[in-house]
Amino acid sequence: MRKTTIGVIGAGAVGKVHIENIISAIPTAHLKHVADAFPDHYNEWARDLGYPLAEKDHSIMLKDPELEVVIICAPAALHGDLIIEAAKHGKHIFCEKPFDYNIDKIVEAMKEVEKAGVKLQLGFNRRFDKNFAKARNYIDSGEVGDVHIVKLTSRDPIPPAIEYFTAPGGEHCSIYTDTTIHDFDMARFLNNSEVVEVFATGSKLINKDNPIITRADTIAVILRFEDGSMALIDNSWQAVYGYDQRAEVFGTNGTVTVENDVFSQAVLHSAKGIIGEKPLVTIKDRYGDAYATEIREFISAIQNDTTVKITGKDGLYATVIAEAAKLSAAENRIVKISELLPKITY
Amino acid sequence: MRKTTIGVIGAGAVGKVHIENIISAIPTAHLKHVADAFPDHYNEWARDLGYPLAEKDHSIMLKDPELEVVIICAPAALHGDLIIEAAKHGKHIFCEKPFDYNIDKIVEAMKEVEKAGVKLQLGFNRRFDKNFAKARNYIDSGEVGDVHIVKLTSRDPIPPAIEYFTAPGGEHCSIYTDTTIHDFDMARFLNNSEVVEVFATGSKLINKDNPIITRADTIAVILRFEDGSMALIDNSWQAVYGYDQRAEVFGTNGTVTVENDVFSQAVLHSAKGIIGEKPLVTIKDRYGDAYATEIREFISAIQNDTTVKITGKDGLYATVIAEAAKLSAAENRIVKISELLPKITY
Amino acid sequence: MRKTTIGVIGAGAVGKVHIENIISAIPTAHLKHVADAFPDHYNEWARDLGYPLAEKDHSIMLKDPELEVVIICAPAALHGDLIIEAAKHGKHIFCEKPFDYNIDKIVEAMKEVEKAGVKLQLGFNRRFDKNFAKARNYIDSGEVGDVHIVKLTSRDPIPPAIEYFTAPGGEHCSIYTDTTIHDFDMARFLNNSEVVEVFATGSKLINKDNPIITRADTIAVILRFEDGSMALIDNSWQAVYGYDQRAEVFGTNGTVTVENDVFSQAVLHSAKGIIGEKPLVTIKDRYGDAYATEIREFISAIQNDTTVKITGKDGLYATVIAEAAKLSAAENRIVKISELLPKITY
Amino acid sequence: MRKTTIGVIGAGAVGKVHIENIISAIPTAHLKHVADAFPDHYNEWARDLGYPLAEKDHSIMLKDPELEVVIICAPAALHGDLIIEAAKHGKHIFCEKPFDYNIDKIVEAMKEVEKAGVKLQLGFNRRFDKNFAKARNYIDSGEVGDVHIVKLTSRDPIPPAIEYFTAPGGEHCSIYTDTTIHDFDMARFLNNSEVVEVFATGSKLINKDNPIITRADTIAVILRFEDGSMALIDNSWQAVYGYDQRAEVFGTNGTVTVENDVFSQAVLHSAKGIIGEKPLVTIKDRYGDAYATEIREFISAIQNDTTVKITGKDGLYATVIAEAAKLSAAENRIVKISELLPKITY
Repeated sequence: MRKTTIGVIGAGAVGKVHIENIISAIPTAHLKHVADAFPDHYNEWARDLGYPLAEKDHSIMLKDPELEVVIICAPAALHGDLIIEAAKHGKHIFCEKPFDYNIDKIVEAMKEVEKAGVKLQLGFNRRFDKNFAKARNYIDSGEVGDVHIVKLTSRDPIPPAIEYFTAPGGEHCSIYTDTTIHDFDMARFLNNSEVVEVFATGSKLINKDNPIITRADTIAVILRFEDGSMALIDNSWQAVYGYDQRAEVFGTNGTVTVENDVFSQAVLHSAKGIIGEKPLVTIKDRYGDAYATEIREFISAIQNDTTVKITGKDGLYATVIAEAAKLSAAENRIVKISELLPKITY
Repeated sequence: MRKTTIGVIGAGAVGKVHIENIISAIPTAHLKHVADAFPDHYNEWARDLGYPLAEKDHSIMLKDPELEVVIICAPAALHGDLIIEAAKHGKHIFCEKPFDYNIDKIVEAMKEVEKAGVKLQLGFNRRFDKNFAKARNYIDSGEVGDVHIVKLTSRDPIPPAIEYFTAPGGEHCSIYTDTTIHDFDMARFLNNSEVVEVFATGSKLINKDNPIITRADTIAVILRFEDGSMALIDNSWQAVYGYDQRAEVFGTNGTVTVENDVFSQAVLHSAKGIIGEKPLVTIKDRYGDAYATEIREFISAIQNDTTVKITGKDGLYATVIAEAAKLSAAENRIVKISELLPKITY
Repeated sequence: MRKTTIGVIGAGAVGKVHIENIISAIPTAHLKHVADAFPDHYNEWARDLGYPLAEKDHSIMLKDPELEVVIICAPAALHGDLIIEAAKHGKHIFCEKPFDYNIDKIVEAMKEVEKAGVKLQLGFNRRFDKNFAKARNYIDSGEVGDVHIVKLTSRDPIPPAIEYFTAPGGEHCSIYTDTTIHDFDMARFLNNSEVVEVFATGSKLINKDNPIITRADTIAVILRFEDGSMALIDNSWQAVYGYDQRAEVFGTNGTVTVENDVFSQAVLHSAKGIIGEKPLVTIKDRYGDAYATEIREFISAIQNDTTVKITGKDGLYATVIAEAAKLSAAENRIVKISELLPKITY
Repeated sequence: MRKTTIGVIGAGAVGKVHIENIISAIPTAHLKHVADAFPDHYNEWARDLGYPLAEKDHSIMLKDPELEVVIICAPAALHGDLIIEAAKHGKHIFCEKPFDYNIDKIVEAMKEVEKAGVKLQLGFNRRFDKNFAKARNYIDSGEVGDVHIVKLTSRDPIPPAIEYFTAPGGEHCSIYTDTTIHDFDMARFLNNSEVVEVFATGSKLINKDNPIITRADTIAVILRFEDGSMALIDNSWQAVYGYDQRAEVFGTNGTVTVENDVFSQAVLHSAKGIIGEKPLVTIKDRYGDAYATEIREFISAIQNDTTVKITGKDGLYATVIAEAAKLSAAENRIVKISELLPKITY
């Protein structure tokens, strides 16, 4: 079995999920390097488990000729620059979502990747979740028919910490670019047409009395696709009953609903009602397998020189839609994707 | 037991549901009159069942001093005028949704009802459906907390016949005023705040190659409420799996989902999957009890001189939101309710 | 529409359900007589509703030449004698379950019915419940294949009152003859083979410290059928979460599970879990439609002179199995049906 | 992190599941030895994966002083002897279910284990399944109350191959000792009382025309517990819709139902019905995590010198109940556990 050598840049929550998966669930990969701007916290955890320790400087791994792949889990504002740097070193790149906050930077990165002839896969892990993948499957097999309506719900169990807004780059953060971005990608994944118009509206409801947080935490979005079909998206940063991620795809032959995975199939019937277990809460519980699958498939695409499942274009479109949503919400108007889409052909 | 004497104007599909309910399930009511512009079809059915036959002229019943209540199930374009006429005769009025297509006419009718001192209840039957009523219940008992997001799905099993568009008054018909009107009322029922802004967008997808039908058959709407909460609505005129009517109310303490009633609780587990029964299809199956309950409660409000559950104001707001939605879809912009709301205080 | 004239003997809880149904939901029937040994309680209720009042003496209705049908809802120990008396008067008979506690009496009644040439239908209402009927449907259509295992659960929301045991005839009462009798009939309804052996075992668990009640309140039964298939039945007289009536039929092509009807389809997702509504509690809520359907079908069998759906033989077998179960539990051994089955051919 | 050195005896289907788990999911264990009577098939698979290859002779690993633990996955008829041998070498033992077919051998093995002072854990993996574990949890927390009825269903997706019956030791094989044994253990796990009586009955229904297979493939069992509570068990060797493993525990405060894990939460609503995905099919999919958890907990019990979760006594009782069930079915009578239980105190 061939083992592809991997380095991870950014060893926060998501970085750790990838690191654990590579070590315990992806026999085709070998983790050689980890880099993190503040390595101490990670290293304490890694030392206990006997995992590779982190360097502070990611350029060390990029210079290692043995390294074939970098997985970028650094803050989103740095993604584009890191991709450009990795591509220049000839490394294949797996980059967490979003591609970047800056559309010009995304285009520049895509060009550099193309020039370098390396593979780039974006980390829209939900496409690899067995539930959403099955919905796509029903579309492909014709069971849904022509898609008319896509509905997506993403609600986090707890809102982001205040540091999320106050950390460097926090000024770019918004629910549209960080949370809804998953739904923008999912809307494209669960339809066969491209988004042409966006209407988004948001409210600050969860922390309505908190003066520091000024941005929306609860949002509703409608997307229109080229073929006249529509998507409805709702997001909240606080669902007290767990991590709520559901979808529906309605078409001429039927509708597919995707419910949440729950802790167990035990159901209590008592004087209080019929009580089922709650949705899984952590991303590791809910999407651990999907995170492993996306890396496994990326390694396979490299080893067999096949096309990656989620391309730079997918990353670009998700960000363009997110920026359109921000603009729509800010100006309370419908925004056409063509206003923001760069004039490049992909 | 006191029996209130009732007449029904308009003996089409919904009129017949009310007539059957009054005769077999509402012991407090006595059906004395039925009027229909084209009485033959109804009379054939009624004769078989031993029900009262229909007169052509509704003014006969209005002149009957014994008659206490009229139930208006005539075409919606005639509602306002019929209400005015009935109020002038001092009859209590139950009027099917929508109140009318014409906002000025609605205001005029409301004034006349007020002047006559009669009771007026609007026929938003879904408020009396046990499923939606339970959702409201969970809101009232605090189990949902502050409402942040309302989601509503209404999909008909088969699209309206072509006559729906070509009949007199058909030029007023639209999915917003006839189908979504239920969701506009339900959005107000499942929230404690009033709608202030509407964004609606629709497509002709079901009969996309039919040149006669030019109006949208598939729509998506976002409503914004005064308190910043939002509603997302999707409608389709053709769901091959049945009459699909679902709701969700998401708030600070949890979310309530309302699923469809189905034909039975038998579930087949076979090599093809785990197959449950489909949603109930006809309005009589799905909402027969709700139709009976709304009339029962109206009779009770008359006999006990209490407030009706669904007022003229509810009817007015639903129509104003529907007109705002039509405008929003036509002009592809956000429409403020205040643009259309008459300058009267209710 | 022809109206068949009906009298009801026994106006307790189940008698009232039939009376209400005949008046409000069965237009083909006309209720003329009611008889009850203690008519006062019923008459108070009936007077309020404008229903026919009860006579003390059931022989009055039997002598009325206009009366075509009697519905027997008297205590089970009297069923056989009442059937014999009604048959001798040439009345068609609908008899509540069980047929009688006494197998010889049942045989005598069946002979009298045959001699009189009247129709007799037994009141195993659950066969007409939409859920169980659908399970039978799946068997008939071949979706289940050859039946291998039938599973039945019947649990009452509250145990019978102490009067159930202490009233006249109470010495005959047992969970097997009064509760499980439904499951014994259902086992035969959901299989295509006859029962040949019974093993039953019961415990007094609910009121384990109550010295007055000596009989089992919780039981488990296995039935073996002629073709080697088996049924497993469990009963309890106290399920705190409601009236629990479920079934499963497992065969070579799949399995059908029948779940409970619940109060509504609203589901609350909160920090405590995902909470659905409980099963319907009263027999009127749960089986009101089934009670109406069985009478409607009986009237139709009379008016059209067709075969009834649940015959005397069905009533006989259910009682024989129940007696076999009592014997099995008492002697802690397997009992063959042939030990108890009368030597008559049906 | 301390790593405990492990050897596996028997590298068939279940052996491989343990081997994969130890290597990829149990960082506290180190796999050093594998033994199999016919090692070629395993070795081909292991070589590809870079796993330790198998020796033919298990005594090699027993003599290795570094080895701390043996996991016995050999044919059940050999379990007792292998445990005795391993105990004599001072190894801790994890033994797959059933303990052995021979009750005397089980007692002998338990004595040897006690003498050697090693730990023995039985492989009733279902106790570690998240679904069944949650049911136990609800019992422990009082949500079920006093247990009155336990119901268990185990149905295999496909019947055992003919070799299962014809291989050496096949004469011992029966559905009671190999399949129902899981339910016998689960009945004890989901109740707080010991089994005292068994009634079992089986039929050959799946291969009813196959003269080679003479044993029952479809069975029904009732267990009575000391406190009067009861368990009902049904098993089939062929469920066309998948691996069907459900449970219910009914008590004074409510009932817990345990449904199957399914492939995904995607549900298709089409003209054919509402179609959910089927239960997981392979033991690795359905119980992979439970297999890993049981070994992880065993290693933890060894490293921390704590009590194992499933003891020799648990293994003994499951086998005694299974033998009682065989006897009951053979002689068509109720069998008391005391007839078979060895006169030792545990």
